[in-house]
Amino acid sequence: MSLANPDAALLIIGNEILSGRTQDANLNVVAKKFGSVGVPLREVRVVPDIQTAIVRALNELRSAYTYVVTTGGIGPTHDDITVDAVARAFGVDVVEDAGARKLLGMHFGDDKLTPARLRMARIPKGAALIDNPVSGAPGVRMENVFVLAGVPVIMQGMLDGIVAHLAHGPAMHSLTVSGFVAESTVADPLRALAARFPDVDIGSYPWMREERFGTSLVARGTDGEAVRAVADELLALMKDLGVDAILSEA
Amino acid sequence: MSLANPDAALLIIGNEILSGRTQDANLNVVAKKFGSVGVPLREVRVVPDIQTAIVRALNELRSAYTYVVTTGGIGPTHDDITVDAVARAFGVDVVEDAGARKLLGMHFGDDKLTPARLRMARIPKGAALIDNPVSGAPGVRMENVFVLAGVPVIMQGMLDGIVAHLAHGPAMHSLTVSGFVAESTVADPLRALAARFPDVDIGSYPWMREERFGTSLVARGTDGEAVRAVADELLALMKDLGVDAILSEA
Repeated sequence: MSLANPDAALLIIGNEILSGRTQDANLNVVAKKFGSVGVPLREVRVVPDIQTAIVRALNELRSAYTYVVTTGGIGPTHDDITVDAVARAFGVDVVEDAGARKLLGMHFGDDKLTPARLRMARIPKGAALIDNPVSGAPGVRMENVFVLAGVPVIMQGMLDGIVAHLAHGPAMHSLTVSGFVAESTVADPLRALAARFPDVDIGSYPWMREERFGTSLVARGTDGEAVRAVADELLALMKDLGVDAILSEA
Repeated sequence: MSLANPDAALLIIGNEILSGRTQDANLNVVAKKFGSVGVPLREVRVVPDIQTAIVRALNELRSAYTYVVTTGGIGPTHDDITVDAVARAFGVDVVEDAGARKLLGMHFGDDKLTPARLRMARIPKGAALIDNPVSGAPGVRMENVFVLAGVPVIMQGMLDGIVAHLAHGPAMHSLTVSGFVAESTVADPLRALAARFPDVDIGSYPWMREERFGTSLVARGTDGEAVRAVADELLALMKDLGVDAILSEA
């Protein structure tokens, strides 16, 4: 947790993810977006719409990582309790924000601000608004915590806005070598290679296609030349095994 | 955490999920499968391939929930460290299991059990094997922790096998009422309805389709009649708002 080597955690809030009703689509987007500016995602948690569960997870994550993104639970309904939970986690009150009320008035019409819609103007005291280019109701930033919507298209709109405000870390370089070979066939030479390049993270990901086994070997790191050197070795390793391999960026 | 009302947590292990390289496909499958036998998923964590991170998360989850499922990190390569981390979490040694070795011999051929392949015969001392109908290398069960593969098709094969061994809880009933209406329009009457049915979990999930806003209202609970009564009220609520609504199971 530092601004020179920033990192992040994601807290997904929602019964619908845990019940299986909804397939999460935000983790992958947040991981890629933060990773693209050198802020690696180090941990993700999914918790239900229960205040104590949200508060505990948020307090653990915000003290452990440079940034925390939350998704879900900021709408107008009774099960949207994220703002209250964030306020509780920080030990501050929830207040109606004049700027948020104005945004909602522009979106719904000032004469149509029902109690439910006005709930979306409530923010933890001291929080800043995050623009919602899609549906009006803003997200909020409280210190190192970004509170975003759960609906993917709205979440992505907010995410694009906040990335500019992050302390960016060193860019990651990533190269992948893939081929039709069982992971267990490459494992022994791969272990020896990994030991020779301790500063490059080498991952091995098996897959199946048309009932044939294949493996993708991924080299990742902040030193682009070292990553390229590992990728060259991975290609040579595959060639030694008689495997046609493909090199791809990312 | 009890056998009368069992619950579960999922621990997803893998740098590839956190980097965004791979989109997780296991959370949703585990949530539905466990939910179908009355074992609700209460929490999910995603952690990197780092032993201390795995051990800490696993020990927190296995003491808090009836069951824990882990996915990922049980293959033959250097980045597959889940078995060692589970053993460390339980304070036991890692041993080569004769049954697992026999399974691997049947899959690869006894004369082809390289050091890397034999890694997949290593289990925490005292663990039981979980059948892998797809690719031979077994998962393991250690007390209340099920250690499964990360590749979705292999994970699902193992999952089907373990569900019969769970203490099943009360079945969940679920009905959904959906229509083209903004969530903020239904929010106020919905809040009043939710207050009248405290034993039914009523969720509200906004969505967008062809640039129109819609909302799905989901009633869930173990009392089927109460869930049905709430669904009827949700249909009436939509009708009062002049919204064409659709009722669906699940």
